[in-house]
Amino acid sequence: MLGRVLCTVLFVGALPSPAGASQGHISVILLGATGDLAKKYLWQGLFQLYMDQVSSGHSFTFHGGALAALEPGQRLMFDVLKKLSCPPDEPPNRCAVLKDQFLKLSQYHQLKTAENYTALNREIETLLRQEGLEEAGRIFYFSVPPFAYTEIAGHINGSCRPRAGAWLRVVLEKPFGHDLPSAQQLAAQLAGFFREEEMYRVDHYLGKQAVAHILPFRDQNRQFLDPIWNRHHVERVEVVLKETVDAKGRTSFYEQYGVIRDVLQNHLTEALLFLIMELPANVSSAQEVVQHKLQAFQALWGLQRSSAVLGQYQAYDSQVQEELPEARGHVSTTPTFAGVLIHSHSLRWEGVPFLLTSGKALDERVGYARVLFRNRAYCPQSGTLRDAGHSQCKPKQIIFYFGHGALNTPAVLVSRNLFQPAMPKDSWKEAGAHSDLHIFGQPLSDFYMYSPVKERDAYSVLISHIYHGRKDFFITTESLLASWAFWTPLLDSTSRQPPRLYPGGVENQQLLDFEMVAGGVAFSLAEPAELLHPSGQMPSEFRAMQSKFRQSPLVSAWAEELIARLASDMEEVAVQSVARSGQFHLALSGGSSPVGLFQRLARHHHGFPWQHSHVWLADERCVPLTDSESNFQGLHRHLLQHVRVPYLNIHPMPVHLNRRLCVEEDGGAELYAQDITALVANASFDLVLLGVGTDGHTASLFPRSEHGLEGAPTVVLTESPVKPHQRMSLSLPLINRARQVFVLVLGRGKHDITTLLSRVGREPHKWPISGVSPSSGQLIWYVDYEALLG
Amino acid sequence: MLGRVLCTVLFVGALPSPAGASQGHISVILLGATGDLAKKYLWQGLFQLYMDQVSSGHSFTFHGGALAALEPGQRLMFDVLKKLSCPPDEPPNRCAVLKDQFLKLSQYHQLKTAENYTALNREIETLLRQEGLEEAGRIFYFSVPPFAYTEIAGHINGSCRPRAGAWLRVVLEKPFGHDLPSAQQLAAQLAGFFREEEMYRVDHYLGKQAVAHILPFRDQNRQFLDPIWNRHHVERVEVVLKETVDAKGRTSFYEQYGVIRDVLQNHLTEALLFLIMELPANVSSAQEVVQHKLQAFQALWGLQRSSAVLGQYQAYDSQVQEELPEARGHVSTTPTFAGVLIHSHSLRWEGVPFLLTSGKALDERVGYARVLFRNRAYCPQSGTLRDAGHSQCKPKQIIFYFGHGALNTPAVLVSRNLFQPAMPKDSWKEAGAHSDLHIFGQPLSDFYMYSPVKERDAYSVLISHIYHGRKDFFITTESLLASWAFWTPLLDSTSRQPPRLYPGGVENQQLLDFEMVAGGVAFSLAEPAELLHPSGQMPSEFRAMQSKFRQSPLVSAWAEELIARLASDMEEVAVQSVARSGQFHLALSGGSSPVGLFQRLARHHHGFPWQHSHVWLADERCVPLTDSESNFQGLHRHLLQHVRVPYLNIHPMPVHLNRRLCVEEDGGAELYAQDITALVANASFDLVLLGVGTDGHTASLFPRSEHGLEGAPTVVLTESPVKPHQRMSLSLPLINRARQVFVLVLGRGKHDITTLLSRVGREPHKWPISGVSPSSGQLIWYVDYEALLG
Repeated sequence: MLGRVLCTVLFVGALPSPAGASQGHISVILLGATGDLAKKYLWQGLFQLYMDQVSSGHSFTFHGGALAALEPGQRLMFDVLKKLSCPPDEPPNRCAVLKDQFLKLSQYHQLKTAENYTALNREIETLLRQEGLEEAGRIFYFSVPPFAYTEIAGHINGSCRPRAGAWLRVVLEKPFGHDLPSAQQLAAQLAGFFREEEMYRVDHYLGKQAVAHILPFRDQNRQFLDPIWNRHHVERVEVVLKETVDAKGRTSFYEQYGVIRDVLQNHLTEALLFLIMELPANVSSAQEVVQHKLQAFQALWGLQRSSAVLGQYQAYDSQVQEELPEARGHVSTTPTFAGVLIHSHSLRWEGVPFLLTSGKALDERVGYARVLFRNRAYCPQSGTLRDAGHSQCKPKQIIFYFGHGALNTPAVLVSRNLFQPAMPKDSWKEAGAHSDLHIFGQPLSDFYMYSPVKERDAYSVLISHIYHGRKDFFITTESLLASWAFWTPLLDSTSRQPPRLYPGGVENQQLLDFEMVAGGVAFSLAEPAELLHPSGQMPSEFRAMQSKFRQSPLVSAWAEELIARLASDMEEVAVQSVARSGQFHLALSGGSSPVGLFQRLARHHHGFPWQHSHVWLADERCVPLTDSESNFQGLHRHLLQHVRVPYLNIHPMPVHLNRRLCVEEDGGAELYAQDITALVANASFDLVLLGVGTDGHTASLFPRSEHGLEGAPTVVLTESPVKPHQRMSLSLPLINRARQVFVLVLGRGKHDITTLLSRVGREPHKWPISGVSPSSGQLIWYVDYEALLG
Repeated sequence: MLGRVLCTVLFVGALPSPAGASQGHISVILLGATGDLAKKYLWQGLFQLYMDQVSSGHSFTFHGGALAALEPGQRLMFDVLKKLSCPPDEPPNRCAVLKDQFLKLSQYHQLKTAENYTALNREIETLLRQEGLEEAGRIFYFSVPPFAYTEIAGHINGSCRPRAGAWLRVVLEKPFGHDLPSAQQLAAQLAGFFREEEMYRVDHYLGKQAVAHILPFRDQNRQFLDPIWNRHHVERVEVVLKETVDAKGRTSFYEQYGVIRDVLQNHLTEALLFLIMELPANVSSAQEVVQHKLQAFQALWGLQRSSAVLGQYQAYDSQVQEELPEARGHVSTTPTFAGVLIHSHSLRWEGVPFLLTSGKALDERVGYARVLFRNRAYCPQSGTLRDAGHSQCKPKQIIFYFGHGALNTPAVLVSRNLFQPAMPKDSWKEAGAHSDLHIFGQPLSDFYMYSPVKERDAYSVLISHIYHGRKDFFITTESLLASWAFWTPLLDSTSRQPPRLYPGGVENQQLLDFEMVAGGVAFSLAEPAELLHPSGQMPSEFRAMQSKFRQSPLVSAWAEELIARLASDMEEVAVQSVARSGQFHLALSGGSSPVGLFQRLARHHHGFPWQHSHVWLADERCVPLTDSESNFQGLHRHLLQHVRVPYLNIHPMPVHLNRRLCVEEDGGAELYAQDITALVANASFDLVLLGVGTDGHTASLFPRSEHGLEGAPTVVLTESPVKPHQRMSLSLPLINRARQVFVLVLGRGKHDITTLLSRVGREPHKWPISGVSPSSGQLIWYVDYEALLG
């Protein structure tokens, strides 16, 4: 062993001189050294690192580890190493010498037990001591299945840490969990072994040259992009990865993950975030980039079932049946195709659709991120002339082309009618004119096109970044969890949804085309009968069920459908009220149940007559309106700030008069009652939306309340059993004057009270909600399946 | 004479039998019977009317009138009549007989003096009496220059009205004035002679088949259009009339009008309104249509200079010099090309650009109204497949093609990926596939295309509508004035602007391409030096002039530029404040001066950090906030309802506490001062915007006020010399704590106070504005040229 390292160091001296005194020794340990990824990319990447850094002053040893015993493992590994190729730009002579060295510096270890790791550590330490080398650091590259992570992490932490002063870098390959809870769990486990700065989570898209250049491009072209990189100029953003291959042979992995976890949650999301994040002042500050990335996540609207269309290529299920004996008899609903619509509510991007699409068994292999700009020009001369030159009426786009496809190279393309971009000359070169290639419907001559001076494999790039400690090319725990927090609701809500089947390849034709419809997406074409899922027509669990509850109409469905239906019904009532009286007086309750409803109203109901609506509160907590506990705050955040209700039509409850909270003599309740009398005809709201507490309270009318359960139709101060205790509320008699009352009940936690209410009579002092019965209006119950059925 | 009518009636009896008993006699009087329009269209239209209605039961006589004496006039007129042509679908035999009849029923009258009109009336009455005919009505068709309108109208009203029971219809040809005041004057004059229902103002575009079918099309395709006819689906609307001819030979007319008055104010506006108006329940109710049209006008944002790009073909000026001796030595700035951007703030159309374009000496003759829809689809399969069939990824548009151009026929085109429209089979037929014609970049095969079963000239159509009394095909006084009210500000603001010169024809190339930029439009290409206006570089009167006023910086310009500059400066201060402190506290004054500023901020400053701004009032009138006199109302209407300031960041002055106005003991002023202290650091606003009254008042601090001119930095109740007398205002010491104070002074009416202020010192009790001098902040004066220079 020792002879080898020494020999390298000596040998290196004979090559172009090292960068000075020894920078110390680096041990690279590749776990899973004989696996697919290692064979295909990682060894080659390590060899490239060695070629690049042999003169850096660092010395290296490379340790392949796997479960196999020494002899067979060694053989397998060296079979791979012998096939390492020399890059075209490397002099063959030098490469051959270096490859020989690299092989000598590499050895195989069986790494199975704690003892194996202790032995490995001992070997490294012995080597260092014998060679008299300072240790610079150790890189542990995990190319192993995730279930093995924690055990290995424990061994490394327990017995393979370098001495103080040297660094440890552990490189982790996805999957990093399969949803938010599992990702959190894994993150917590790893945090028990490694510090955040020691972990390098690989998303190999961040090593793809076109992806890695998005931020530098935005930075170097600020002068052109600043005025147009916003919702006023951008029509849409597409991030796409199309594959021709299918999952055959990999279904045991794929069946657990599906396309969203495999590609969208990580690769496509990362590329999207580079495009949409606010540009940090310093784009090479890992910290700034991560921070801006997190902010971009926070500005995204949550995903719903309607945010995605899902498909599965027809042969997938039989492949699963073949490869996974345990799947026999089950029909797989794992999606192999997904189109997802994402929206941001940031000032910059509000309303701009971000479309993420990926699929297997499609008609071509290609990946790209594309920003399409609006046509803001009118060109009066006729078509022929319009098409000449770089007319402003031609499409304008910027494309980061990941590779493959028609171009078969990574590339950055900018429409010539946009601007000529600044590109770093040492790494990107302007590409020559390709005969008459068309891309996205335009001839290539319409673009400034740049391709890398030297095409580099993503893993080589990333291994170099690991060596240089460039953490901005890796996924931090925080941003990983933010991504899972974003994607998990979609995964949950679509888990029972049968995907559309598609034949695969060119035969897919227009079957996978999808459209933005009412805030979500839907396939453009109806599903052809012959492609219906073999399980036959699935029972639609999602249809709203109609019936009676407490003698009033009941609408019931799963929560999302229920809210969609409620929002539509509200819009209908609003439109009718405005048609009848020119106004719509709506009283809304606080709490968490209506949040989804508010968001749906804000996002999907563009025809809602907000301009003619008055928004009242059904109840309020006695806290300042600026307090996050305030019902008004919630209402404002989730609804009012997104729609256009005239200022004077918004009526927060006056719980904070004279800079104090709900003091009787300030007369806030009376004031609100007077406002209602003055503005709402007959003090009869057009619609009151209520919820129900587990104790049967509604609005802020609690069981055994002294005020508000009977008497005059007025506004009252009440006491809540939970903090904040003081409340203001419409009284039951005032609520019962309404033309319509909708009661929304959501979630398993409400099952008991729902069951109870289905049995009891009108006893408002026990259960205030039971006293809701509009004297001349209508009451409708909206109860989700979980609350209704438990 | 009498023989002729009788003979007709008898003759008609021999043709397909009349519709029953006589419906009475109609006299048609064509004034300007030998003019261009009469020759080209009107006589032919009258002949068509006769052919269509000869069996209606009405009898007709046709009277041509002009200034020429009987003999030459008669000769000229019958020269025209002899050339009348028979429509292709009319049996030649029948037509020849009818043409002979038509000539016999027509006669020429010299109509110059009052006596001539009395004589005409006498002749008609004699005829009716002698023939024993009931009079049904009289049509007077004004095909004369507008200066002759009132005199002729007086004669008709004085001596040519039909007897009671018969109707009078006067048909008027544009121009109907050249701006709002002249149109109002003409309308008032005509109203002295005719009742509204008697007047038929012709816009011959309303007779064009494709234009006339817009509303019926929207009505008959409601089911398809309802979901997509709005800002969420429509990308833009274009209404275009391109001509190849120039104005040669007509410059004496054209030089007074120009392209906006000639084409945009009337034809293109009418077509646009049909597209964007809310669809009446009954589209054939003239009243409903007019009402909805007026509402559509009201929802349009006012036009500004930046709303238009103007051009003039290069030869125009020399044509003017040649044809108009009085123009010698003047350089004409009359536009022969205009592109105008119009926006509506209606809920339906907010943000959708409406582009109206017309020009002479362009590369082709064509007219159309085009609704282009957004692409809301994503098509995952590659280009070849995407283009096949009726992919949702292809452009989607609906085109009302007025005629000429590539199609050379009126047509309605609907992209096949939209829907197959319902079209009335008796009047529109599906057009066959034209070889490989392309239109708007798409093969014709991408469209459902319909053309009229029978192509009809607009004037024939309109003359038929006059006969049937279909007033919805004509321009009412109200809608005419609404149109002028809309266009006049643009005409005024561009009247001194030199248009871009263009060579004409195909050589225009991309010179007239224009783009939407910052709420307005601008040519895409810079003006080539060789095409600069012959008058040379005009002095830019519009550049903001910078200097000092009362020892503080002064910015001066014409009002529009001044406001643009002020708005930009405000945005800059806002952005800096947010960068510094996370917030921007802005105090705004009421009154009329800032209205233009508010609108500019709402429309042009999308980057303004409203989300982080607090808006305060500098002063308020003691009226309810819902009162139209309230400063807050104006602020809300012009600014707040269009931007997104969080509800709790909006701070109206509490002038209406406890349901009474500015009562001292309610402590409104103290409350506001407390709010300021609580929220604004150091009670120092980031920016206070003030105005100046002619008496030197500012905010609501009036000369000799007891409160607010000195003392504590607080909020005070004051008295105004004009109603409403009671006011609330920031005090001068509070204003002077601000970091920035901008004072906006606009209009000639402020010239005297501006001059005075330039001379006097600090005397706040005489002129409160003179006391504005921020103790540690900056004061900037924004004074327009009219206020500064008188």
